This record gives sequence, C-alpha cells and structure tokens, in this order.
Amino acid sequence: MNDKPQVIRDTDDDARRQARILLRGARFAAIGVLDPETGFPFVSRVLLGMDSDGAAVILVSNLSAHTTALLADPRASLLTGEPGKGDPLAHPRLTLQCTAENVERDSDTHIRLRARFLARHPKSQLYIDFPDFRFFRLRPERASLNGGFGRAYHLGSDDFLIPKINDDLFGGVDELLRELGGKHPDLGERIAMKFHNAPEGDWRITSVDAHGLELIYKDILIRHEFVTPITNLQELLLELPKSVYPVP
Amino acid sequence: MNDKPQVIRDTDDDARRQARILLRGARFAAIGVLDPETGFPFVSRVLLGMDSDGAAVILVSNLSAHTTALLADPRASLLTGEPGKGDPLAHPRLTLQCTAENVERDSDTHIRLRARFLARHPKSQLYIDFPDFRFFRLRPERASLNGGFGRAYHLGSDDFLIPKINDDLFGGVDELLRELGGKHPDLGERIAMKFHNAPEGDWRITSVDAHGLELIYKDILIRHEFVTPITNLQELLLELPKSVYPVP
Repeated sequence: MNDKPQVIRDTDDDARRQARILLRGARFAAIGVLDPETGFPFVSRVLLGMDSDGAAVILVSNLSAHTTALLADPRASLLTGEPGKGDPLAHPRLTLQCTAENVERDSDTHIRLRARFLARHPKSQLYIDFPDFRFFRLRPERASLNGGFGRAYHLGSDDFLIPKINDDLFGGVDELLRELGGKHPDLGERIAMKFHNAPEGDWRITSVDAHGLELIYKDILIRHEFVTPITNLQELLLELPKSVYPVP
Repeated sequence: MNDKPQVIRDTDDDARRQARILLRGARFAAIGVLDPETGFPFVSRVLLGMDSDGAAVILVSNLSAHTTALLADPRASLLTGEPGKGDPLAHPRLTLQCTAENVERDSDTHIRLRARFLARHPKSQLYIDFPDFRFFRLRPERASLNGGFGRAYHLGSDDFLIPKINDDLFGGVDELLRELGGKHPDLGERIAMKFHNAPEGDWRITSVDAHGLELIYKDILIRHEFVTPITNLQELLLELPKSVYPVP
C-alpha cells in the first residue's frame, strides 16, 4: 500500500508484468501468518521458490512459528520487492494474499518442488532433506501492487497463474535446459546482460515456464518474462537464441 | 523464525540489545495486519519512527489498506532487520507483535511524534500534514528475535520499554541536542565512526532517550545503544563527549 493519497488504477498488462516479476524474481519474502495462540499477525522471513504453475513455494522447519501457524490456518500474505537506496516507499512492491497447501513428502509435487528449490537455492541442500522440513505451496488469491508513489493496482489469482507448456517434444524442461546449455553455453549471460543490464558472469538458466525463465548468478536472481507466453518448448529452443545471438 | 531446527534460547542482555537495535535502527519495516474483509494477513511496507517510550510509530494514509485494517483491529506485526548480501536467513531479524494506538491530530502525542518522525524522515515533510494522514503508535506486546541460524529468542513487552529521562535540568532533549551540537559539532560523526564503523559524513544526532541515541546521515540510520541506560540529561552531556574525544 502506498502511503500517499491515491486511487486504485485499472490493472493493465504492464501492471501484471511488474507484479509477476516482483513475485517470481524474489529470492526471499516477508511472510505474514495468523498466530494461532493470539490471533495476531506474525511476520517473518522465508526463502522463496516457485512452482511451475506460478504458486510461491516455501521450505520451512516444523519448529518454526510460521509452520505451526500455517498448519492451523492456511491464510498467508507475502511481501516482495526489496527497496534499494533512497526512499523505501518509492520502490515497487507486491502484497500477495495466498492459501498454503501442505506438500506430502515423497509425493510427485514434493519431488518437483525439491528439484526447483535446490536449483534456485543451492545452499538449501544442507537441510532440504531433514525429516522435520516441509514445503508449502502458496496459491495466489489476490494481490496489491504498489508500483511507487501513486501507482496502486489490484490483481486477481489468474494474473499469477502460469499455463502448462506442451513439453511432449522434448521430454520436459530439464532436457531442454541441457540442450540449450550444450548448444549455447553463454545464453543465460547474454539474456542477463542484454535485457537486464546485468554484469558479466556465469548466469545459469535454472528454470523455464510458459511465461519466462529464471537466471541465477551467485546470490542474484533475475526473472526474465517473455514478451509473449510460449506454448511449447520447441518454439523456445528456436526463438530464445535468436533474441540474443547475431543472425548468421 | 529460523528455518533450521532449533530450540529457543534463554533471553539474555545481548539478545535484548540486539532486538532493540533491530527495531530502533530500522528506517522501514514490513507490517502485517488483519484484512477486515477476508481475515487474511496483509503484509505491506511502512516507514518507521520511534516514540520516546520505545513504541514503534507509523505515518499512514487513510486510503491505505493497512490503515483501514488497523482501525478495525489493532493487532499488528512488524518485521525489521534487512538482509544484505548472501543468505537472507543468515541475517538477524526481529518479529514484533504490537497493538496499534490511533493518535488524535493536534494532541500532545501527535505533536511529539510529528517532530520525531520529521527528524528521522525529512522527506515526509511533503505529506506529513495532509489531513488524511495519521500516526499510529505500535505498542510492543512480544517479539521473536532470530539472530541468525540457531539463535532464536523470545522477548516480552518490557524488553522494548524505554524509561523516561529526568530532563528537568535541561528543559528537554531538544535543548540538550542544541547544546551538544553547539559545543561538539562533530560528536555524531565521531560516535558513528568509532562505534559503528560508519563512513565520514555529517552524522546528525536526531534524538536521545534513556537507552541510546539516533544518528542519521543521508539515508542511513544508526541506532546507538548506551552500554548503561542514563537517568538524566546532565549525565549524558558529561559522559557522551568523553567516550569519543581525547581527554584534555
């Protein structure tokens, strides 16, 4: 919420894009849950992952207060969009309200989330398999985007949903990433530098979905949203390199 | 909450000190409130001020979602302690649960909070007197300190309370600050550099209380906690310069 008088603007594609990037490009978030003992909100910090359908993902210990709270009441809120220098209220930020879904260990969902979370947060390897750790999927319900002073928008759950890609041709995203990495070892770096003004570095593409891809180098995460969503992986294999390599 | 298995440690003076600095040294915070329409938590970002008794202070627009929420239910939570580079969960952070008290315009409390908030956030001058803005005092109820992996503590409301200083001898803190500033123009800079490893700069002392003082330079805020609380301003006038100036 912006603290200057304002009205809510009509949500357009630019606002949707900004909101998605704020959620999908966040390595961590402030999470608000309902304290089951007092009914007070309880805000703490969590590492953030993302499922292939756009749901946010957290990995939490059973000993933590937010785990106890989410098991008692699945209503939660995430704040993403970290301020840099200057006025903290001038920086864009997103408030998401979401419903937590507990993920059963060794389920297909668990296996998928574990792989995606590890790719994004390699250091979580130290505790990701501890028996008292669990994943929650946080299904977006609605959101408020504050794009800076006087730029407030409301968004719905559909605005955060990522459609499934037809990946029959390639046996899945992992195989595509290997194929792309083999053919174009510096593809991630080129995308990061050309579109995101990022420094040189070993930028890895750690995940791909219909709306975009994720680039990681050291502790920096970039969410690269495509201009147009893709519908199958072959399309991506053809189009993505064209956007950053000179035409032969 | 830490996401590694842990037990809660016994709260000692070091933990209290770290928790106070995390709250009192924060320019902004994530605030969680209860959404009156849905019952979901709602987490957004606010600039933070501090009252002379240690209560957190926010300045908010009547149009913002958190204002509507706090007027309907005063239960709130603040998260402070911003991560820098590296693992976001390795950085100390504080979850405070607090009760919001609406501050009547032109009350003594309003006048005091306005002056303190302006000293800390000079740019708020642009909107601090707008008729639809209001202050809330956020009275600490309890807190969880996460001092980094495996270092979790619980704190109570008393741990955040600042006792009143006897300021009869000086006509108040403002006068003391003028006196100190006149005698020792670089006192703030010396404290910042000696005790906080801060860069050179025009560090201003913007407030003083029984537990410490606040130093501001550009967009950086440092909370300097005294080793021993003071009981009157004369003590401070004598002791504070001694800590940073060579003995003549």
